[in-house]
Amino acid sequence: MGLGEFKVHATAGNARRATLMTAHGPVQTPVFMAVGTKATVKAMTPEELKDCGTQVVLGNTYHLHLRPGEKTIAKMGGLHKFMNWHGPILTDSGGFQVFSLSQLRNMSEEGVEFRSHLDGAKHFISPEKSMEIQMDLGSDIIMAFDECLQYPATEEEIDKSMALTYRWLLRSKAAMTRKESLLFGIVQGGLSLKHRLKSMEQICSVELPGYALGGFSVGEPIHLMHELLPHVAPKMPANKPRYLMGVGTPTDLIIAIDSGIDMFDCVMPTRVARNGTIFTWQGKVSIKRSEYREDSSPLDPECDCYTCTNYSKAYLRHLFLSGEILGSRLNTIHNIHFYMKLMELARKAIEEGRWEAFRDDCLTRFVKKER
Amino acid sequence: MGLGEFKVHATAGNARRATLMTAHGPVQTPVFMAVGTKATVKAMTPEELKDCGTQVVLGNTYHLHLRPGEKTIAKMGGLHKFMNWHGPILTDSGGFQVFSLSQLRNMSEEGVEFRSHLDGAKHFISPEKSMEIQMDLGSDIIMAFDECLQYPATEEEIDKSMALTYRWLLRSKAAMTRKESLLFGIVQGGLSLKHRLKSMEQICSVELPGYALGGFSVGEPIHLMHELLPHVAPKMPANKPRYLMGVGTPTDLIIAIDSGIDMFDCVMPTRVARNGTIFTWQGKVSIKRSEYREDSSPLDPECDCYTCTNYSKAYLRHLFLSGEILGSRLNTIHNIHFYMKLMELARKAIEEGRWEAFRDDCLTRFVKKER
Repeated sequence: MGLGEFKVHATAGNARRATLMTAHGPVQTPVFMAVGTKATVKAMTPEELKDCGTQVVLGNTYHLHLRPGEKTIAKMGGLHKFMNWHGPILTDSGGFQVFSLSQLRNMSEEGVEFRSHLDGAKHFISPEKSMEIQMDLGSDIIMAFDECLQYPATEEEIDKSMALTYRWLLRSKAAMTRKESLLFGIVQGGLSLKHRLKSMEQICSVELPGYALGGFSVGEPIHLMHELLPHVAPKMPANKPRYLMGVGTPTDLIIAIDSGIDMFDCVMPTRVARNGTIFTWQGKVSIKRSEYREDSSPLDPECDCYTCTNYSKAYLRHLFLSGEILGSRLNTIHNIHFYMKLMELARKAIEEGRWEAFRDDCLTRFVKKER
Repeated sequence: MGLGEFKVHATAGNARRATLMTAHGPVQTPVFMAVGTKATVKAMTPEELKDCGTQVVLGNTYHLHLRPGEKTIAKMGGLHKFMNWHGPILTDSGGFQVFSLSQLRNMSEEGVEFRSHLDGAKHFISPEKSMEIQMDLGSDIIMAFDECLQYPATEEEIDKSMALTYRWLLRSKAAMTRKESLLFGIVQGGLSLKHRLKSMEQICSVELPGYALGGFSVGEPIHLMHELLPHVAPKMPANKPRYLMGVGTPTDLIIAIDSGIDMFDCVMPTRVARNGTIFTWQGKVSIKRSEYREDSSPLDPECDCYTCTNYSKAYLRHLFLSGEILGSRLNTIHNIHFYMKLMELARKAIEEGRWEAFRDDCLTRFVKKER
């Protein structure tokens, strides 16, 4: 397969089983990508990520620009070498963090001036700057610089923002000159179907190796996304990967795959692991529950991860209550393994013509306990 | 070799190269034991400890008694199974922590009543209780319950405390009924040679498979220990392992081995790792130094640990400044590996008749930068 090629092997309704070729090798989709915000997937080594079935790691443009700086990473041989991850890397554009983390933003057609959440220093990011940072990092998949609206937003705000995101995409594309990287455009449009479809038309009119849906997971009731996806995702170009940014729970993933989404990322499995929340095939559980005090069974009897193979709930509960780093590590390994296994089984189910049964089994298992 | 057997293979002056047989296998001495206070060596898995050359892990009687409780651990199959460490385990008696961590102590001939530093609950530990806890944990090497004096102490206090420690040793021995465990007695006596020798005579008059020196690393100027050791350690029984508790820096270890000490434990390599302090063959360094910002070299060019094989100083500095768990992990792996390698090389140097040269080389390397 050539760089950027996307090959669909099997479908089941809108769901697809495909392969995307990057400069650091092929990615089997549907894929969940592990979030490594600051050049590390929290609490994990690259070897552990691999052992859990991780294919792609995300880096964060905003955070890495502020610390240690993309020029430093470039001097150290690029993000892959810096963090010792030699599989594909996707970097977001920094747009989301500029709008959610930084202070004193000053928006213009040109870009965004903001103050660092670390030290208050002034920075400026434009589509061109975002491309420069992501190219310096040596990212395999580069995201266009977009405006990410907060929820709720008025129709007028959505209209204005969509138009800006489109103009910024054209500038992102013009500035993205690194041949080894694939540029993805980001569809915005809030939670209105009309605006989503219009933004999709605009963004997908630009020829690119992939397209994403941004602006979800910004505080909206989740059923709004579930209702919107089947009307939007299937209309995105069928011969290109579709990436739903920042989503979500196991249930969200199954529903989105069913709508034709191929790629996902989310801090959820790693973040909640550190707070003692565990995803299992029997639903979500909290490791601190007192009933686990003398429970010698693993987190999940159906799981073959390092944590479940070697440790009891009683031990994991003890580590969590004692605030031990090993507790965060073992919980994270399990949750990442669970997400990767869910994707592996989804791929297999689509390949083998069992998608609907698999989907329904997952939803029955997860929905009750998830929310 | 039979359980508890101690075989000296080679000597160099007072320094010894020996093997101690425990119920979970042989221990090659001199040995540095990794401290796993709360049933985990902070930030490390058992596999990583093994990869670093760790032979013995320490558990803490005081902490494990309070949480999760030795009865819970016993129900989970003992401490080895609970924490997934299948090599030898040594447990301290809880004496040190009762005197350093707990509040509102009430000392008597019978034992110590104290309040938990976790929740203020009242507890009572006696020699018999300490043995019961350590036997429940399934420890391979059990330490006698002793009184650990604070520094400085008056002659009268030392005298009184030594005598109590001796009576408590007799009670510890009578209460220790687990055949698979080895009971070690603890020599006290503060920093006075006269008292140390007297305590040694008392403690070593009780036939036991090993003897320890307690009451160091309690805030005294370290040169006092360095001066005392050559006059005390060589007089301890030659056919039994000698364990210097809670010590120390690489320099301390070399000086103590030279005095005839066989066993060590200390939180230093793990604790300082989490604060960004790294032991190297060129001395001690702080990873946060700004000169490492774009340093693509490993922590220690002479080191072949996982951290030094895969990561640059620039990356480790970035992880440390970002407060990332992976930073604590990688620094800990390096420091533990360094301590284990130091012991391995010490053993080899004694075996091969090169101890004095090795010792002097180490002291030259470490002393300048260590303090």
